[in-house]
Amino acid sequence: MFKHQTAWRVRYAETDRMGYVYYGNYAMYYETGRVEALRSLGLIYQKLEDDLGVFMPVMSMQCKFIRPCYYDELLSFETSILEVPDSTIQFHTDILKEDGKLANKGVVTLCFVEKESKKRIPVPPFIVDLIKPWIGVDTESI
Amino acid sequence: MFKHQTAWRVRYAETDRMGYVYYGNYAMYYETGRVEALRSLGLIYQKLEDDLGVFMPVMSMQCKFIRPCYYDELLSFETSILEVPDSTIQFHTDILKEDGKLANKGVVTLCFVEKESKKRIPVPPFIVDLIKPWIGVDTESI
Amino acid sequence: MFKHQTAWRVRYAETDRMGYVYYGNYAMYYETGRVEALRSLGLIYQKLEDDLGVFMPVMSMQCKFIRPCYYDELLSFETSILEVPDSTIQFHTDILKEDGKLANKGVVTLCFVEKESKKRIPVPPFIVDLIKPWIGVDTESI
Amino acid sequence: MFKHQTAWRVRYAETDRMGYVYYGNYAMYYETGRVEALRSLGLIYQKLEDDLGVFMPVMSMQCKFIRPCYYDELLSFETSILEVPDSTIQFHTDILKEDGKLANKGVVTLCFVEKESKKRIPVPPFIVDLIKPWIGVDTESI
Repeated sequence: MFKHQTAWRVRYAETDRMGYVYYGNYAMYYETGRVEALRSLGLIYQKLEDDLGVFMPVMSMQCKFIRPCYYDELLSFETSILEVPDSTIQFHTDILKEDGKLANKGVVTLCFVEKESKKRIPVPPFIVDLIKPWIGVDTESI
Repeated sequence: MFKHQTAWRVRYAETDRMGYVYYGNYAMYYETGRVEALRSLGLIYQKLEDDLGVFMPVMSMQCKFIRPCYYDELLSFETSILEVPDSTIQFHTDILKEDGKLANKGVVTLCFVEKESKKRIPVPPFIVDLIKPWIGVDTESI
Repeated sequence: MFKHQTAWRVRYAETDRMGYVYYGNYAMYYETGRVEALRSLGLIYQKLEDDLGVFMPVMSMQCKFIRPCYYDELLSFETSILEVPDSTIQFHTDILKEDGKLANKGVVTLCFVEKESKKRIPVPPFIVDLIKPWIGVDTESI
Repeated sequence: MFKHQTAWRVRYAETDRMGYVYYGNYAMYYETGRVEALRSLGLIYQKLEDDLGVFMPVMSMQCKFIRPCYYDELLSFETSILEVPDSTIQFHTDILKEDGKLANKGVVTLCFVEKESKKRIPVPPFIVDLIKPWIGVDTESI
């Protein structure tokens, strides 16, 4: 599997009157996690859209809220890809609190769409090539 | 089942550069749907928090993105409760586009927490009483 | 002057841990106010962009925060146009709390940009024609 | 004057259908700029609220939108304090694009409120002590 870690400081804007991070803001956290994960693989999503004319709309999302996150906490987003993408690509994000405890788990599935035709396309082969070497590799043991 | 409908005009703030409603904004749509659904049942969520000291944090959310929603579309949020709440309460939201086609399906599960102790509590009995009469009733045939 | 009123229910998503509406959300309120004000004049901003290829980016914004707004309050956005637009158009928004007291004052100035060329253009004449009849008219006395 | 710089990567969530950063998101950028500026001075705003019971609500904001910011741009927030705070504190934020050009200028004025009484208080003396040494100092020449 491929696994990537990125840090995030919770801002005031993201909290709600309960004093927690608003549940709707986790989708933005998953976005940050997966875009930085792809960047670390050598894929800049902005270039995929602007240079190659490929969009990746979200098809589904599942979130589990395990512990609340608070203002100014320094969170860690751990984003993993467990399978070689095919017609879709799936990202698993674990959000860890500053004390290392698990706060949230998210799974987001995206597809590939050609900008011009707005039609779905299979995963571009170069994306498979970037990810394939990592699948089946036990990252924990590296 | 209990079913409630509320309208929503998509604002510029909610769109992204793809020209779609950003996938993270649907959680806010589900919130609007369920708060207005509860209001129509006679339960004002703000009073639940402020007068009765009961919070309803979100435990899980599932979203399916079926068709994109666009700027200035007049959406319809159809929020249903299918089961009598117990330790949790579950809301199903179908988001329909202006042309009536299904755009998105969301399921959000919330629990009940006592403000003071921050401990989980069972569903307050008066909430069961508000919802119970609707369960088992075929709202389509009314 | 031209004056238009629209209602808004504060959602949980818009609050912060202080229990107030987050100060960054007022820009979205001003957007809602001015888009509904233009709609009431017969100008649908979405059509201006999509059918006429004219964008209206924001050039400046000033906000005064007078009283906090709270969760679930039913606010009133009072949007006024005081002057005939020229190279820019200016909207004044007063946000009133549920009890009628003034919560916030905003002034937003926008310009006109041609979608294709991304160049600034003067105000389209039909927009002047929509607004001109209202300027110099005392709306309070109607 | 006191001047602090922090970096920010524009996320998809922050863009709108115009392809620009939505104008309402700059307030969140100013927040990030000033909170990190205060942190660099030794003041953690979260501790001010939670340990000392002092809130800093925003009283006014002015924004000038000079050039649009785009998705995935690496922005720089330059936050300055020009004057010793008194009954209020004022932050000036210049937002620079990835190419160094000025995108946006913001001025945000905040006051100090005691959490318990919800009454305004003068600036806590230790905040004056943190900032005073920097005022009158030409940071450019250091």
